[in-house]
Amino acid sequence: MTDLAAVKAALKTQAVETPSWAYGNSGTRFKVFAQAGVPRSPWEKLQDAARVHAFTGVAPTVALHIPWDTVEDYAALAKYAEERGLRLGTVNSNTFQDDDYRLGSICHPDAAVRRKAVGHLLRCVDIMDATGSRDLKLWFADGTNYPGQDDVRARQDRLAEGLAEVYARLGHGQRMLLEYKLFEPAFYTTDVPDWGTAYAHCLKLGEKARVVVDTGHHAPGTNIEFIVATLLREGRLGGFDFNSRFYADDDLMAGAADPFQLFRIMYEVARGGGLTSGVAFMLDQCHNIEPKIPAIIRSVMNVQEATAKALLVDRAALAGAQAAGDVLGANAVLMDAYDTDVRPLLRAVREELGLDPDPLAAYRRSGWAERIVAERVGGEQAGWGA
Amino acid sequence: MTDLAAVKAALKTQAVETPSWAYGNSGTRFKVFAQAGVPRSPWEKLQDAARVHAFTGVAPTVALHIPWDTVEDYAALAKYAEERGLRLGTVNSNTFQDDDYRLGSICHPDAAVRRKAVGHLLRCVDIMDATGSRDLKLWFADGTNYPGQDDVRARQDRLAEGLAEVYARLGHGQRMLLEYKLFEPAFYTTDVPDWGTAYAHCLKLGEKARVVVDTGHHAPGTNIEFIVATLLREGRLGGFDFNSRFYADDDLMAGAADPFQLFRIMYEVARGGGLTSGVAFMLDQCHNIEPKIPAIIRSVMNVQEATAKALLVDRAALAGAQAAGDVLGANAVLMDAYDTDVRPLLRAVREELGLDPDPLAAYRRSGWAERIVAERVGGEQAGWGA
Amino acid sequence: MTDLAAVKAALKTQAVETPSWAYGNSGTRFKVFAQAGVPRSPWEKLQDAARVHAFTGVAPTVALHIPWDTVEDYAALAKYAEERGLRLGTVNSNTFQDDDYRLGSICHPDAAVRRKAVGHLLRCVDIMDATGSRDLKLWFADGTNYPGQDDVRARQDRLAEGLAEVYARLGHGQRMLLEYKLFEPAFYTTDVPDWGTAYAHCLKLGEKARVVVDTGHHAPGTNIEFIVATLLREGRLGGFDFNSRFYADDDLMAGAADPFQLFRIMYEVARGGGLTSGVAFMLDQCHNIEPKIPAIIRSVMNVQEATAKALLVDRAALAGAQAAGDVLGANAVLMDAYDTDVRPLLRAVREELGLDPDPLAAYRRSGWAERIVAERVGGEQAGWGA
Amino acid sequence: MTDLAAVKAALKTQAVETPSWAYGNSGTRFKVFAQAGVPRSPWEKLQDAARVHAFTGVAPTVALHIPWDTVEDYAALAKYAEERGLRLGTVNSNTFQDDDYRLGSICHPDAAVRRKAVGHLLRCVDIMDATGSRDLKLWFADGTNYPGQDDVRARQDRLAEGLAEVYARLGHGQRMLLEYKLFEPAFYTTDVPDWGTAYAHCLKLGEKARVVVDTGHHAPGTNIEFIVATLLREGRLGGFDFNSRFYADDDLMAGAADPFQLFRIMYEVARGGGLTSGVAFMLDQCHNIEPKIPAIIRSVMNVQEATAKALLVDRAALAGAQAAGDVLGANAVLMDAYDTDVRPLLRAVREELGLDPDPLAAYRRSGWAERIVAERVGGEQAGWGA
Repeated sequence: MTDLAAVKAALKTQAVETPSWAYGNSGTRFKVFAQAGVPRSPWEKLQDAARVHAFTGVAPTVALHIPWDTVEDYAALAKYAEERGLRLGTVNSNTFQDDDYRLGSICHPDAAVRRKAVGHLLRCVDIMDATGSRDLKLWFADGTNYPGQDDVRARQDRLAEGLAEVYARLGHGQRMLLEYKLFEPAFYTTDVPDWGTAYAHCLKLGEKARVVVDTGHHAPGTNIEFIVATLLREGRLGGFDFNSRFYADDDLMAGAADPFQLFRIMYEVARGGGLTSGVAFMLDQCHNIEPKIPAIIRSVMNVQEATAKALLVDRAALAGAQAAGDVLGANAVLMDAYDTDVRPLLRAVREELGLDPDPLAAYRRSGWAERIVAERVGGEQAGWGA
Repeated sequence: MTDLAAVKAALKTQAVETPSWAYGNSGTRFKVFAQAGVPRSPWEKLQDAARVHAFTGVAPTVALHIPWDTVEDYAALAKYAEERGLRLGTVNSNTFQDDDYRLGSICHPDAAVRRKAVGHLLRCVDIMDATGSRDLKLWFADGTNYPGQDDVRARQDRLAEGLAEVYARLGHGQRMLLEYKLFEPAFYTTDVPDWGTAYAHCLKLGEKARVVVDTGHHAPGTNIEFIVATLLREGRLGGFDFNSRFYADDDLMAGAADPFQLFRIMYEVARGGGLTSGVAFMLDQCHNIEPKIPAIIRSVMNVQEATAKALLVDRAALAGAQAAGDVLGANAVLMDAYDTDVRPLLRAVREELGLDPDPLAAYRRSGWAERIVAERVGGEQAGWGA
Repeated sequence: MTDLAAVKAALKTQAVETPSWAYGNSGTRFKVFAQAGVPRSPWEKLQDAARVHAFTGVAPTVALHIPWDTVEDYAALAKYAEERGLRLGTVNSNTFQDDDYRLGSICHPDAAVRRKAVGHLLRCVDIMDATGSRDLKLWFADGTNYPGQDDVRARQDRLAEGLAEVYARLGHGQRMLLEYKLFEPAFYTTDVPDWGTAYAHCLKLGEKARVVVDTGHHAPGTNIEFIVATLLREGRLGGFDFNSRFYADDDLMAGAADPFQLFRIMYEVARGGGLTSGVAFMLDQCHNIEPKIPAIIRSVMNVQEATAKALLVDRAALAGAQAAGDVLGANAVLMDAYDTDVRPLLRAVREELGLDPDPLAAYRRSGWAERIVAERVGGEQAGWGA
Repeated sequence: MTDLAAVKAALKTQAVETPSWAYGNSGTRFKVFAQAGVPRSPWEKLQDAARVHAFTGVAPTVALHIPWDTVEDYAALAKYAEERGLRLGTVNSNTFQDDDYRLGSICHPDAAVRRKAVGHLLRCVDIMDATGSRDLKLWFADGTNYPGQDDVRARQDRLAEGLAEVYARLGHGQRMLLEYKLFEPAFYTTDVPDWGTAYAHCLKLGEKARVVVDTGHHAPGTNIEFIVATLLREGRLGGFDFNSRFYADDDLMAGAADPFQLFRIMYEVARGGGLTSGVAFMLDQCHNIEPKIPAIIRSVMNVQEATAKALLVDRAALAGAQAAGDVLGANAVLMDAYDTDVRPLLRAVREELGLDPDPLAAYRRSGWAERIVAERVGGEQAGWGA
């Protein structure tokens, strides 16, 4: 039997970080459809993020992307967040949107470009000092499009060298989260294509280096929860970028494409102690055709539901069936939790937290959507390129 | 034994259509890296395409994309092409870059948007009348990102209705080429995801409707040459969009990722009579990090090499081994052609055509690359969004 | 609002056909793990199938595989089934286990082998006459392993010819269900690799020819429910082979790998009228490491649950949100049904049918598992090769 | 410019290990098609392997599979090999064909089964002592079919424990090669699914533990040559299992499905020093429908051709283009080597080695195929299950 009070307690203390860029415009290479009311500055992104946290109660931090969220005074930004019940979270580096980065950044064949990229990463750590952020998240668009274009192995050497310099700069309590991605925007190779590559680099860097699992960054057929279990076993799981995908890095709402997979992932997280060991649970997605704030609220709720189901797994019964080699019995224990409708449980959790049991309805009633459309007129909307 | 004179004759009359948009800037959703010297108008694109044809001898036509290539006077554009040894080729419609098309175009739930989309397609036929183009190529970005977002079947009904109206408008000698694509920019469903869907619509439309095979638009593991053979058997292969991909619709140079696959495709084309039955051989690719004109020349050469190898297959020996159930023998006949270095043959073909045997070297020596960088200063460079 | 009485009525009349071969031993190319109590004859398979129907109430028919289920007297077999509350269902042909079929059956380069294969198919129709079966299900292991091994197009011609002969033999009320499969056991091409190929052949054969969708037979990333919707729209969906897969044709229990996908499929079935238009709902799976009868019961229940959720979708609300272009709202309507725990509803349905609400528990209590282990001693256990 | 004499020298000393099981019967889960003349014992397999080496000159060792190749006296077997110009190579363990292994071997939930599996592995090292083999190759069929079936992480603990015991038993000069595989025969998880998992275990075991790359064991879209380059950089590439695949672990002849990929792999091998650092180059494939000995000869030749092309890459020109960021130029250098017809070079190499330039023709003329059909009558043919 699962301990329902413990489940509720865990759900009340869950924290899902939302990404500042998800509040801005986004799209595909074919078209960015701008939406009315979209933030025009990091400050306005924080206003929106505060709404998500106000209605869900479990989204207390916001990830920044530099330079998209560049401001003059990061301490002021942190204070602005704090005044709205938020904290600034993970700092994400961006070394793929300058013309210099056409052939890569930290792995570029030209040392001058690598120097520039490392400089950017070091500045991100400076920003972390100012914002009080724990984690530097590194995703590199680096890679090659054509066989032979560059030396695959030399790029690894350059990567290792650059990472080492940045790692050495990390302060006390700061971590480096290294993200991997199978493909895109590089098409032939990416320089950190899989968890094994990220893990190998982290091992050499040291204890503060951890791997980030973005749920959209794997080849078809990859068992992501196996990777999660393995990284937890190795003590190297830094965090998640949640989103969902049907084919590639589709960046749809977490839990939208394969809710059973999200449940299996959260089960391995819970089983491996990942709910209480500093793993960062972040959303990383984009809302190209749907309104952004409600999509983010829905995504947070989807993560909550998957977590609730994972926590409801009768671990003792499961262990018993597994030990007995009872294939169907063990599977049935897991499915029993998955098949449970946990929405009533989460409504109860919210009410006990003093929240509306239905965050989406509460958001709709709040008038925020109409207000930002009315007030955010003029200026330049935030987007991936902003 | 293959008849070398016949092979040469076939290679001399081959025609690969280049796409106007490949001469402009392109990129991924993360970044478009602009290149110096890129055309700023359809006229300048034709200048570049004329260079490709001048050096390869087998790229006599250029595909247009409307509205990217909108001009006041299409007859003038056709004349401009003709003066440079070119003809205007396939007209490509674009119903995905207006804000109205956020949820689709010809399949949109709102009849007014569908009306607008069909109107655009009809105008494309008007343009074909003016340019003398044979083919209208239809690729729809239509689809849905989330399960339930729209009614999958109703969208098919709308698609059928819209296509029928456009089909009815086709003039004598004009054709409709319907393209399919598994995913992107729609992520959950696209409305024409596979050849079967395109084929089913073409059947109902009539003889002038044909299927286009874009080599980058399939799920992993799909045997594209089987589809080619099947469509030729059905009399419904309209043409190709050649490009290559490692993972998704990577749009790399044709033949760059899997030259053996391109050879197998061209073998089925040759075997099925597709070299002489009106099949359109088009490039559809983008050159995000490499210079565009040489990349297009190289792609044309790659198609030539695959075609040459396909023509070198000893068909009688192959048929004999196949009939005898000689698995290794039959495979060896095919591989024998593939393993042949056909570059000397193609050099000879070019010399017999009065061309430089090395198109890339000739292009480099021509000074065109330097000239367009020097001359095309100011103005707005062409790109996917232009 | 959905009409709960109508939902219950639909669930009570649902029928899932179980495959005779799932009751026998099966395995991978590496090993078949034999299980105690496995049937040694078609008669014993029917005994087991009768248990599945007795406890679920919705598995009234059993599919046969010829020659695995060859008996002297099919009328006697039908009577034996009837006495146990069953009917004989779809007849499945098998043209892949004779040495003659090394290079194919109906598509084999040698006319004598093709003749033999067609002869087998015609005998299957004879058996249908005797058993009263409606459907002949054709899956061909035909294909090639190596490029060039055989002529892809000629194999299509042979296929068409063979199918036509068999189609002509069909009696009144009989149908031909043509199954497609992307790969395996042929690795380079299969001769009916996708729904488009099956559909094209069915079109030419006539109204009695329909396409079968096996949920495990697609490339990664394929949207199966789109195919279902399309085939229903075309009036060509013959039936399903349900199973589930993580990577290839894994043949796991239906609903085990991606229950959300099964729900989406059943939603399109319901939306397209497929629950009441003669679509055959069959299981086609194998239980390599788990006990077979409970695995089949569980699979039937999984199909029931997916169907129940599909029927619970608030179609009016969904249509409204779709028409309004409300992406999140429409998705939420669908997800609301999916997130519902339908197990109480199905327990109620079973009780109203006079069944135990928990089929698996009832089966376990019945002692059947122990009885067959005790009684089925000696003889040769049924398996794929038997 | 490449040094042709050095290329020839490298090609003359290349060694490709052939697998004993490829000489026996094999098939899919649907059917094993037996072939006439197939060996009935390890001794006869060595006779066939000797023919492959005699005609190619580069296949001097044979891999054993235990228990498929169990004999009374391994020293006698080694001597038998030596008398035929061969050596016994890698010893492959087999812990998947006893009924005890239904739920795994070294990762099984039951300690007694794990004990048995480890015992088998230890006996394999005993055999290595007798045969003089350097490498123990470990591939585990272990995994689970259903979510929840067993504890993913506990299985890793068991795996680590078992591997450590076997590793401790290795003698001087002996190595452990750990193979990974994405799927099959386990369908939900395999216990060593990717190179990262194998690498993590090898790191902990010690210097004698290396990773084996089987070219058929990856998810679609995986860049295998990247893994090769990375493992060489880490000093952990133990060897290859060459074969080719279109979809899954198809086990077709090496180089048959994607010869360009094999070339890219061999290029990274050469570039990373893998030709001279103890990497084992093994075939691991099965010949289900084609005659076995010529298929193996052809595969060896395909590996030779890929190696020759890799060696012909103009490394200086490539490095220059890469350093200059010349995307097309660098790609062209690589493609120039790939497009070269290396068959004349390899014919010359063979003649300089005193061999027939055409191994397949020489084999055919030798009469061996007819002889084994005539002589190997009666007895039980070797196969995967034998």
